Amino acid sequence: MLTPHDDVIAAIATPIGEGGISVVRVSGTGAMSLVDKNFRGRRVLASAATHTAHFGSFVDSKENVVDEVVVTVFREPHSYTGKDTVEVSCHGGIFVTSKILESLLCSGARNARPGEFTQRAFLNGRIDLAQAEAVADIIRSKSEAAHRVSVAQLQGTISAKVKEMRLRLLDLCGLLELELDFSEEGIELLDRQRLVCEMKVAISSMEMLIESYTSGKIAREGIKATLAGKPNVGKSSILNCLLNKERAIVTSIPGTTRDTIEESVSLNGILLRITDTAGLRESSDFVEIEGISRSESEIRESDLLLFVVDCSSGVNYEDLFAYQRVKNLVGDKNRILLIFNKIDAASHNTCEVPDMFADIETCSISAKACIGLDQLRSRMLSKVMKNKTSLTDDGSIVITNARQREAIVKAREHLEIALHDLENKLSAEYIAMSIRLAMDCLGDVIGLVTSEDVLDNIFSRFCVGK
Amino acid sequence: MLTPHDDVIAAIATPIGEGGISVVRVSGTGAMSLVDKNFRGRRVLASAATHTAHFGSFVDSKENVVDEVVVTVFREPHSYTGKDTVEVSCHGGIFVTSKILESLLCSGARNARPGEFTQRAFLNGRIDLAQAEAVADIIRSKSEAAHRVSVAQLQGTISAKVKEMRLRLLDLCGLLELELDFSEEGIELLDRQRLVCEMKVAISSMEMLIESYTSGKIAREGIKATLAGKPNVGKSSILNCLLNKERAIVTSIPGTTRDTIEESVSLNGILLRITDTAGLRESSDFVEIEGISRSESEIRESDLLLFVVDCSSGVNYEDLFAYQRVKNLVGDKNRILLIFNKIDAASHNTCEVPDMFADIETCSISAKACIGLDQLRSRMLSKVMKNKTSLTDDGSIVITNARQREAIVKAREHLEIALHDLENKLSAEYIAMSIRLAMDCLGDVIGLVTSEDVLDNIFSRFCVGK
Repeated sequence: MLTPHDDVIAAIATPIGEGGISVVRVSGTGAMSLVDKNFRGRRVLASAATHTAHFGSFVDSKENVVDEVVVTVFREPHSYTGKDTVEVSCHGGIFVTSKILESLLCSGARNARPGEFTQRAFLNGRIDLAQAEAVADIIRSKSEAAHRVSVAQLQGTISAKVKEMRLRLLDLCGLLELELDFSEEGIELLDRQRLVCEMKVAISSMEMLIESYTSGKIAREGIKATLAGKPNVGKSSILNCLLNKERAIVTSIPGTTRDTIEESVSLNGILLRITDTAGLRESSDFVEIEGISRSESEIRESDLLLFVVDCSSGVNYEDLFAYQRVKNLVGDKNRILLIFNKIDAASHNTCEVPDMFADIETCSISAKACIGLDQLRSRMLSKVMKNKTSLTDDGSIVITNARQREAIVKAREHLEIALHDLENKLSAEYIAMSIRLAMDCLGDVIGLVTSEDVLDNIFSRFCVGK
Repeated sequence: MLTPHDDVIAAIATPIGEGGISVVRVSGTGAMSLVDKNFRGRRVLASAATHTAHFGSFVDSKENVVDEVVVTVFREPHSYTGKDTVEVSCHGGIFVTSKILESLLCSGARNARPGEFTQRAFLNGRIDLAQAEAVADIIRSKSEAAHRVSVAQLQGTISAKVKEMRLRLLDLCGLLELELDFSEEGIELLDRQRLVCEMKVAISSMEMLIESYTSGKIAREGIKATLAGKPNVGKSSILNCLLNKERAIVTSIPGTTRDTIEESVSLNGILLRITDTAGLRESSDFVEIEGISRSESEIRESDLLLFVVDCSSGVNYEDLFAYQRVKNLVGDKNRILLIFNKIDAASHNTCEVPDMFADIETCSISAKACIGLDQLRSRMLSKVMKNKTSLTDDGSIVITNARQREAIVKAREHLEIALHDLENKLSAEYIAMSIRLAMDCLGDVIGLVTSEDVLDNIFSRFCVGK
């Protein structure tokens, strides 16, 4: 009587590599008996209590010892997936861990698909879809901000908010549908004034969530900043300064940097991904031309462009040529921060700003002499974050997931239709239907009404073993 | 009353990377109470039974939730280290795992040094030194043979053998030392004939262990085979054939391969590390000269050299020139296997073997037409393994560790001195002393008499978290 989601699956759950311990996770009905085929300890796992750990030898089908292991048993429903689960903790080599997985497959387990353990946790009602997606985000988080947002999501902040919104819509919808039953009597159970008000509140809550996606995306993925400018204005020096290490090779020879270099650094808990690019100039050198073409695609994808000029030698036509290219690639002037570098070596007259730069935010620094770097950092942050000082400390609910955002955008659209119909005095039938559709969209966020295909697509992006 | 080896240490025990689970290991007296500072579950760990797992939240010092975790408690002496140990299993991201470790350090744990958990297991008498070294070997093993040998060592095969040899020497030594007490009476408690015989047996056992190191090294590190020859004889094609994939770029242009390419493949469970090198010829191209110089150092370090000639075009002076260089680099002709490639395109008269190659083992193949490859594989194995058909199936004890080998070599030297003294009828005092020294060397293998410095040196080569 196994359902398709109940056979025994197994996968290496820890990262692949050499370490002290690796863990192979096994889950499904009969997981304990299956691992018993390979486990030689003081007792059989099939009769072990939940949440107990057991030391023993792990053997292959020929009874050759593969490793000494500690096996932990989690009985249904008190496990990650909600079904019987065994975790085999072995010595953390690549070969030995693969060998243990292989032996378990030999004993009848099936290779777990990426995210299948979490998918089962969702299907068995242990967590909702927004929480499942938070699990993947926690694993991938690379900064304090990303981590905080996803832990809050795992604890159900989004889920609670969405459920609350959904319940309020359900109330409205229920009353409207009740009205339909009494339609011949022409009774209005729901005051239309109140309905308009309630729906406006709902739309505005949704808008806040949708807007939170921008800062949520920054929290999750960080800020992509790209250094650009003509050759030898000090882009690589600025990169090294921001990273606090000698990452890029710095020489006084123009055109030293050819390949683009990307490095990450944490800024107030937010991941800053800085790319150093080849200086933009006309060149006939094959490698340099390739380097410049790569720079251009980096520039196009940046959240923030740091355009560097050397104010010790003054701005010349080469800078203007490079700036023109950059501006066309970036599109939006507000994403450009103009950096006057080498101010320690500048005389007054070399620092005149051409009209072209007049409406661009500027920042004067010296990477070499370490002047103005703190100011540069805070300018970079404020430029991208606008007026928010922090992403996570204000306790507001933040969405980081494009799928969730899309579902809420759709919900809002349905509510706007409902509002429009209401203002045009359409029948309660139409309004109730639109509200129902909005509720379905909210249900998508937490996975109430999501189809198997959509689920497979979501979980396939997880890592194996989760 | 903490000894230096009893404070609480902590480290990430799983490989670093993204995965479903990561484990942070904490061990030392008071480990449970320490983790309790960060763990919020249904019960406190300090009162939890050994070998039990507990679900809860992991919080930092400000009570911010870092992750949802499962914590497993192992009480002294039933743990890996022999002391109280807690394993915190969290979502397997790099950031979140580091954050958990950080919080534990904040709560008073100390960062574990590489191998420190295993070092404690050794110091607490859970395992001996040879077993501890086997742990590191299991983690690093990359082939069936390496894995089997190290699992046998972890289970104590070497330890048992060495202990047995040591006990037999102790018997002899005891009797000799007893004789000294009665030296005035001139009593010989130990028949000198029997003593000579016993010592010869001991020396021969030691020699077997020392010899096993060669095959043990192959089991652990694999065979390093290098392809060499003049340009365009098909070295890269042979590499691709042996790997069963298109690893190296193959063209008909001589000198296509410039950088050396190393790839690994398993051959009867033994790791074969094959290096493809730039063709050896006089060249004026800078990159090619650099490539050839790299080839030469690869050739020098090979266990096996595969010298390739193209028998479709016949052997010419360029082959002889390349062979001369190779022979000088390799030194030992027995480590060279001559490969006649492209036999499918060869006519009879082009395949004459010059005298220079007369005493070299040969093998005829066609990489392109897949002829003779199985024979090539078995020739390669038999050439390196001499007469052994398998490394591990015959149940003999194999040493893989240079330190252990060195200790046994020294033990043998002392016994040989003892034997020599015996034959020269020296006093029992000298003989007993040499036997004692041999025993000490054997004790080094399993860590009976090893100094702290030596231990630190051994364990520092482990990975952190083990």
